[in-house]
Amino acid sequence: MEIRVPFDELKSKLQAGMLRLGFEGERAEKCGRLFAETTRDGVYSHGLNRFPRFRETIRNGSLKVEAKAERTGGFGAIERWAGNRAAGNLSASESMGRAVELAKQHGIGCVALRDTNHWMRAGTYGWQAADAGVIGMCWTNSMPNLVPWGGMERALGNNPVVLAVPRARTGAHVVLDMAVSQYSFGAIAGFIARGEQLPFDGGYDAEGNLTRDPKAIEAAMGGLPIGYWKGSGLSLLLDMTAAILAAGRATHELPLDVMKESGMSQVFMAFDVGCFGNGSEVEKIADSVVESLHAVKGRAGKRPRYPGEQTLKLREENLRLGVPVVEARWKELLELVG
Amino acid sequence: MEIRVPFDELKSKLQAGMLRLGFEGERAEKCGRLFAETTRDGVYSHGLNRFPRFRETIRNGSLKVEAKAERTGGFGAIERWAGNRAAGNLSASESMGRAVELAKQHGIGCVALRDTNHWMRAGTYGWQAADAGVIGMCWTNSMPNLVPWGGMERALGNNPVVLAVPRARTGAHVVLDMAVSQYSFGAIAGFIARGEQLPFDGGYDAEGNLTRDPKAIEAAMGGLPIGYWKGSGLSLLLDMTAAILAAGRATHELPLDVMKESGMSQVFMAFDVGCFGNGSEVEKIADSVVESLHAVKGRAGKRPRYPGEQTLKLREENLRLGVPVVEARWKELLELVG
Repeated sequence: MEIRVPFDELKSKLQAGMLRLGFEGERAEKCGRLFAETTRDGVYSHGLNRFPRFRETIRNGSLKVEAKAERTGGFGAIERWAGNRAAGNLSASESMGRAVELAKQHGIGCVALRDTNHWMRAGTYGWQAADAGVIGMCWTNSMPNLVPWGGMERALGNNPVVLAVPRARTGAHVVLDMAVSQYSFGAIAGFIARGEQLPFDGGYDAEGNLTRDPKAIEAAMGGLPIGYWKGSGLSLLLDMTAAILAAGRATHELPLDVMKESGMSQVFMAFDVGCFGNGSEVEKIADSVVESLHAVKGRAGKRPRYPGEQTLKLREENLRLGVPVVEARWKELLELVG
Repeated sequence: MEIRVPFDELKSKLQAGMLRLGFEGERAEKCGRLFAETTRDGVYSHGLNRFPRFRETIRNGSLKVEAKAERTGGFGAIERWAGNRAAGNLSASESMGRAVELAKQHGIGCVALRDTNHWMRAGTYGWQAADAGVIGMCWTNSMPNLVPWGGMERALGNNPVVLAVPRARTGAHVVLDMAVSQYSFGAIAGFIARGEQLPFDGGYDAEGNLTRDPKAIEAAMGGLPIGYWKGSGLSLLLDMTAAILAAGRATHELPLDVMKESGMSQVFMAFDVGCFGNGSEVEKIADSVVESLHAVKGRAGKRPRYPGEQTLKLREENLRLGVPVVEARWKELLELVG
């Protein structure tokens, strides 16, 4: 069952929960806020509903509550950071923050982070960059959950990629938050729960055949990269570049267990588009591209939308009506914080 | 009919052809070499076979033989260049070269190029970066030839993206050269010529239905982005970021005519992975990812390959046996250079 709770209440309980899990004050506050904002923005899979799994990774030692990311080296506009298995959302947020600082200094900035944990909602760091007035780009590798083109076994990560363009005037940033899998395993679980087939190929069955049967895909854990051979190549390169830039682990070195997925490599980039001294042209170009998309004739009762278009609407709605939470998850949180 | 001609002969005739088209000495040499190397590396669609179209863009004024790209601004590690409608492959090569220089100085470097022409083979600039020992990344926008998700009309570019990782020891760089379309219109024309259906959805027919019929897609010019809604968002962001960084044109401002496609925006990035002082770890990580891919069990007589894996093999073969060219194209070139 789903209920709605006021955002401030969700946030403060999550912050209290993080304190209970052992985070020190300021980090507990930020970590809880990031979880609450994720649910507020409608990414329900990676906010409160993800909290039990987050908790489990602390319990099993994959995530160290007392650890912090630290800078290990730098050269001009690029830095390397070690994640030290700290909370992945905190380290990712710090990394994007540092990339933005580097961009203010050098026009562009890059932080490559190794040995980190799941960053939860990828889009968080795109919104962060856009809110800071810069173009943001980041990607992470992941455990192997996709089958490479021509192969029979999962070996590639779904490696989410974020590209974010600021629109400071309205705050309606354009934020792409995209794993290179055609469907996430969360989405596949949803199709199974509803007893539906996938509308498009979504993975492989145990015999290595492409299928739209979500049960077969889940059983084989054989996800499909977007664009068949194309996403297969893209996933490999995202993994390889992240591991090399961060001097960290590649997908094939990450544990094949969602509860122990830890040690990932990530790249955070910021482009200070204002450095050429004309910020208003950024808005104008972004707006014109959005307008051109909105002018496209819709198909079958739909219309084209830009990535992130629903976010502000959902955010406003959830702030007004309360944030939808699964009641069981909410009760678990209340029990934890007493 | 196809014949094989020695690489050096192909190169020198193309260079002579570029002189005939009006390029000055050094630029004619480089432009001809880039075309010849593209055919040598097996990307037949964008080498000699593309020469007639290249010639036509000069004839119709889309490409200015006497023009050169020039730096218009810079801040730290990022620069803006104006392409001035010069030959797109020359300007792209200069831009990637400058991004590499900036990376040597700042760790990373970025050149955003506006008002340029088709860069021909995208992978060229990935191989260039990798040969220079850096990770290269670049993308371009294009005229609108893909249909956005939820839409009925083409409005997005196929916006090729390149990601390249150097492997200096062997020269077997890993180079992804990927348009965000599921099939290029060249590939679709190939299916039509062979009387075949596409194996997967490749676009929309005139009624806006997804189809595997290459004729219907060609007639509607309605290409499909990889991953349906995912590539649709990716294409939009690649276009928007390129146009903003370069202060140039976005896809919706480019002419809908392959013979007059001109004025594109492009981004070139280089990451000097050696800047942290341990180049050998780059090779080790890249090799380990390639090995992990090659260890994957193959499917249906295939095996997984990394992007660019065939290039060195084809290059060696074509250097040894002669480069395959369409005889009619070769004769046209010989006629031009007399």
